[in-house]
Amino acid sequence: MTAHENERQRNREEELVATVLAAFDATPDPRTREVVLALVRHLHAFLREVRPTEAEWMRGIEFLTAVGHWSDERRSEFILLSDVLGASMQTITVNNPAAGDATEATVLGPFFNEGAPEIPLGGDIAVGDEHGRPLWVEGTVTDTTGAPVPGARLDVWEADGEGLYDMQHPDGRMSTRGWLRADDEGRYRFWAIMPLNYPVPDDGPVGDLLRASGRTPMRASHLHFLVSAPGHRTLITHIFVKGDPGLPTDAVFGVRESLIKDFVDQDASVATPDGRDLDGRPWTRTRFDIVLAPDQ
Amino acid sequence: MTAHENERQRNREEELVATVLAAFDATPDPRTREVVLALVRHLHAFLREVRPTEAEWMRGIEFLTAVGHWSDERRSEFILLSDVLGASMQTITVNNPAAGDATEATVLGPFFNEGAPEIPLGGDIAVGDEHGRPLWVEGTVTDTTGAPVPGARLDVWEADGEGLYDMQHPDGRMSTRGWLRADDEGRYRFWAIMPLNYPVPDDGPVGDLLRASGRTPMRASHLHFLVSAPGHRTLITHIFVKGDPGLPTDAVFGVRESLIKDFVDQDASVATPDGRDLDGRPWTRTRFDIVLAPDQ
Ligand SMILES: [Cu+2]
Ligand SMILES: [Fe+3]
Ligand SMILES: [Fe+3]
Repeated sequence: MTAHENERQRNREEELVATVLAAFDATPDPRTREVVLALVRHLHAFLREVRPTEAEWMRGIEFLTAVGHWSDERRSEFILLSDVLGASMQTITVNNPAAGDATEATVLGPFFNEGAPEIPLGGDIAVGDEHGRPLWVEGTVTDTTGAPVPGARLDVWEADGEGLYDMQHPDGRMSTRGWLRADDEGRYRFWAIMPLNYPVPDDGPVGDLLRASGRTPMRASHLHFLVSAPGHRTLITHIFVKGDPGLPTDAVFGVRESLIKDFVDQDASVATPDGRDLDGRPWTRTRFDIVLAPDQ
Repeated sequence: MTAHENERQRNREEELVATVLAAFDATPDPRTREVVLALVRHLHAFLREVRPTEAEWMRGIEFLTAVGHWSDERRSEFILLSDVLGASMQTITVNNPAAGDATEATVLGPFFNEGAPEIPLGGDIAVGDEHGRPLWVEGTVTDTTGAPVPGARLDVWEADGEGLYDMQHPDGRMSTRGWLRADDEGRYRFWAIMPLNYPVPDDGPVGDLLRASGRTPMRASHLHFLVSAPGHRTLITHIFVKGDPGLPTDAVFGVRESLIKDFVDQDASVATPDGRDLDGRPWTRTRFDIVLAPDQ
């Protein structure tokens, strides 16, 4: 291409972007307008940079169509796509701006259940799970000034000792989840089980994308928390296990350095903090001190 | 937010982008890697700029899912989405770089049919269409040095006198399309009908997007050309009608200034160029001189 042709080509591409932006400029709702104009700018910048052949663009269209076709009431392949592109985590990040030393948020995931049972302070969310290794979790809930948040509600959930969430079993069970309240000094404690690695569903087009990228579908092992209290920003987060080899390759980019905790293994001979008899089983303990950002 | 919090927030967002890019960096196929890394960069730049609430992001996911569900073998709502965002036209533009005064390309559209009949030079692609106003189209096919391209193949198609493509009629007809060859001096001529405005399908989620943006689903009136000859870049384009009020709001952004032609109305009393008897009907004539870029 001559310099002159180059310039004409650039003009044509830029003119097209300007024309598309002008067309969307009449969008009456200001927020819709803002979003759609930004979408057009980034989409066209992507196209002008990547310069897909028409066959490549069609493959992209076919990929998105397949993602749509894999989505139904029970499975959202588009959420999964958003997850493995880090878009879900980026959305979480922008919606939970840094506030003092407030605990960082991470993805909610598809396995939260509002109807989980209440457990007492020190109770067990994994009663009767004979596969899981008992895990003692304790900590405090404070605000960003260091003051305790008495009565804060903690919802906690995780995969069971087989690496499956209760809703992934066909029998309709409810297990390995529950909610409790911090005490008057903002302290909490409960029994759970050591979290395991588990894969995101990889039998659809998003699985194909992961394989094409040499990526694993596995999530780093984690325990989910949803912590709420009046006057505070609700915190949706996980804790992760220090030393888990899956930490650097978490399929949905949920890991934040500050959320990786020491999980300390204990011999069966070591007495449990609450005197519980574990029938000679070894156990593990961890600590997670939670700081809630102010509401606003 | 304090300046310090601001900086930490920016770091978190940038770190996440870096982590996602690093994960895709192991993609073995170099072109896939290039495309997916660019996608991640632009997607995250979009998210960090727009800062969608989680509810807004879910609405986006639901929109894409609906677009997927509207797509089947006969209708691609994703192609339509690409069209109304100007992405299809941008893909065409980057794949047809400026080359001398080569004619500009525009979108193929969903109504091309490889099996269209051959017509002789001067033949009629709209035989028997009693709704359409007869249109005489003539011109030359040359290369970028000005030399004629003898025997160039021209496929031409358009909506019929009712504003519908043949395949939009349920009766399986083939009409208002055909192909011919330029003569030894690269000249061509044929009869067609005056093109009409017609809408893109707007009963699905893409139609909702157009309505939310205050945009029209109508296409500027046009006549399709696909021009091919050995040694030359195949040209897919339209000609548009000067003075058509739909030109500035073409739903798929296919209009290029250089493709707008004079369509000159003729009284019934004016003799046709080839002596054809139009039974007292008025007619129109236009000229489209086509310049093919070299192949490469
Ligand atoms: Cu961008
Ligand atoms: Fe999980
Ligand atoms: Fe058309």
